[in-house]
Amino acid sequence: MEEIARHKCFDGDLSIRRHTSTATQCPMEFSIFVPPGKGPFPTLIFLSGLTCTWENFTTKAGAYGAAAKAGIIIIAPDTSPRGDGVADDPEGAYDLGLGASFYLNATEPPYAAHYRMEDYIARELPTVAAQYFPVDLNRLALSGHSMGGHGALTLGLKYPDLFKSITAFAPITAPSQVPWGQKAFAAYLGSDQANWQAHDATALMTAAGDRTKAAPILIDQGGGDAFLDQQLKPDLFAAACQKTGQPLTLRLQEGYDHSYYFITSFIADHIDWHRKNLSQF
Amino acid sequence: MEEIARHKCFDGDLSIRRHTSTATQCPMEFSIFVPPGKGPFPTLIFLSGLTCTWENFTTKAGAYGAAAKAGIIIIAPDTSPRGDGVADDPEGAYDLGLGASFYLNATEPPYAAHYRMEDYIARELPTVAAQYFPVDLNRLALSGHSMGGHGALTLGLKYPDLFKSITAFAPITAPSQVPWGQKAFAAYLGSDQANWQAHDATALMTAAGDRTKAAPILIDQGGGDAFLDQQLKPDLFAAACQKTGQPLTLRLQEGYDHSYYFITSFIADHIDWHRKNLSQF
Repeated sequence: MEEIARHKCFDGDLSIRRHTSTATQCPMEFSIFVPPGKGPFPTLIFLSGLTCTWENFTTKAGAYGAAAKAGIIIIAPDTSPRGDGVADDPEGAYDLGLGASFYLNATEPPYAAHYRMEDYIARELPTVAAQYFPVDLNRLALSGHSMGGHGALTLGLKYPDLFKSITAFAPITAPSQVPWGQKAFAAYLGSDQANWQAHDATALMTAAGDRTKAAPILIDQGGGDAFLDQQLKPDLFAAACQKTGQPLTLRLQEGYDHSYYFITSFIADHIDWHRKNLSQF
Repeated sequence: MEEIARHKCFDGDLSIRRHTSTATQCPMEFSIFVPPGKGPFPTLIFLSGLTCTWENFTTKAGAYGAAAKAGIIIIAPDTSPRGDGVADDPEGAYDLGLGASFYLNATEPPYAAHYRMEDYIARELPTVAAQYFPVDLNRLALSGHSMGGHGALTLGLKYPDLFKSITAFAPITAPSQVPWGQKAFAAYLGSDQANWQAHDATALMTAAGDRTKAAPILIDQGGGDAFLDQQLKPDLFAAACQKTGQPLTLRLQEGYDHSYYFITSFIADHIDWHRKNLSQF
């Protein structure tokens, strides 16, 4: 594992790393913030949205002051495989291919070879990070923004023994029902929509059994978000949660848009939410 | 004045503006964060360093949570004039021309026409901003980073009736004595070093009278900053402050570098410092 850069920040240690992933079969970069003090630390993985890399959250979220105070590690991975030989959308669209993995394992060519981000996030990254940093693998949390919020909800629901606390900012909650998700799922998973359901938070929640005892989920959604009605649809997920008894706090934050200015305004709340959820383990 | 973008942030209002400056004779952009509540508000102008625009501080400093809490407006202007007809270094160096104004009024061609950033920051921007936003012109503060720290110290010392509180992050404190400053001053002000002294914080402080009753200055300097010994030299400024009695808190922050990860770690302290200084007016 290579260290690309390192910065002291809020008395903690921010490191940018590159490693060769066995899941995606290409080099992957991520940032990791380790708070001051003695670990192992509860660890939050934050999944960014379309067009992002590890850098957006790392530079713009303003999260590390709260993470230092809470004693939480934050890992910000990339949003897709990258590099020579990694397929991109032939038209170079921002919502497919590079920067737009949707955090799933693609089954369709040309994406199936490298687009295995579900395996990367859920099966590889935590253990790889724990080899080099004081990550407590028994206290992992997931959060994310937009496409990354979709990733946090779906992977959190699919791997509950691994990720014990979930939050999201403006997540794509029902990708099978919205243009962003339909385009990506058709390309990555093929046209049989039955195969999409395992990657759709609302479908996963609808199919779940009784979740009244599951860890509570926090979702913040900007009321002034231009993507709210067409792409994000938190009401669909909220309705599914109501059916299964999943404790959900869905906050419609009036006037906030889809940008990192929204995320930075509420990231401390999410860090505190995870701190509380993970303190039981 | 044109609004380029607007974002709700920490219950306040972040606006990106473009206006035609009479000082620089070109369009200038700045960001302004207005906290929630009823103004007029004490106002901090933050001057960024070499290569930056208004965007670096605005997206990376993580300042607006503390500004919202303190009830302080923050304006982040650009670091130089820009646009058609604005001279740049013929070699395109990062430390001269565009993004590298040193916040002074250039006297030498080809820079003299537009590089009038001292006039822009000290004579135009505050009053222009106050026409559109609840800026309290009797409670203005200056801060900045690196070249912008130089700008904050020099303009703060030259316009004490206007800027009543000064702080800086890793400022170039004695530009006449270091490579960055010598290169820029020669190009902007000519070879007669007597003309440099009015734009050199250490020279200004040395020439000042008794400053025991001046507002205290806060400087944070990263101990792991790669530019510390060759370009920044806070000890020279500290020695000058000692001669005049200027109250100075110079904090060497062990292990911190020259990046915005350093600024974000301490920006809340600076906002609080300005809040206290300005609360007397």
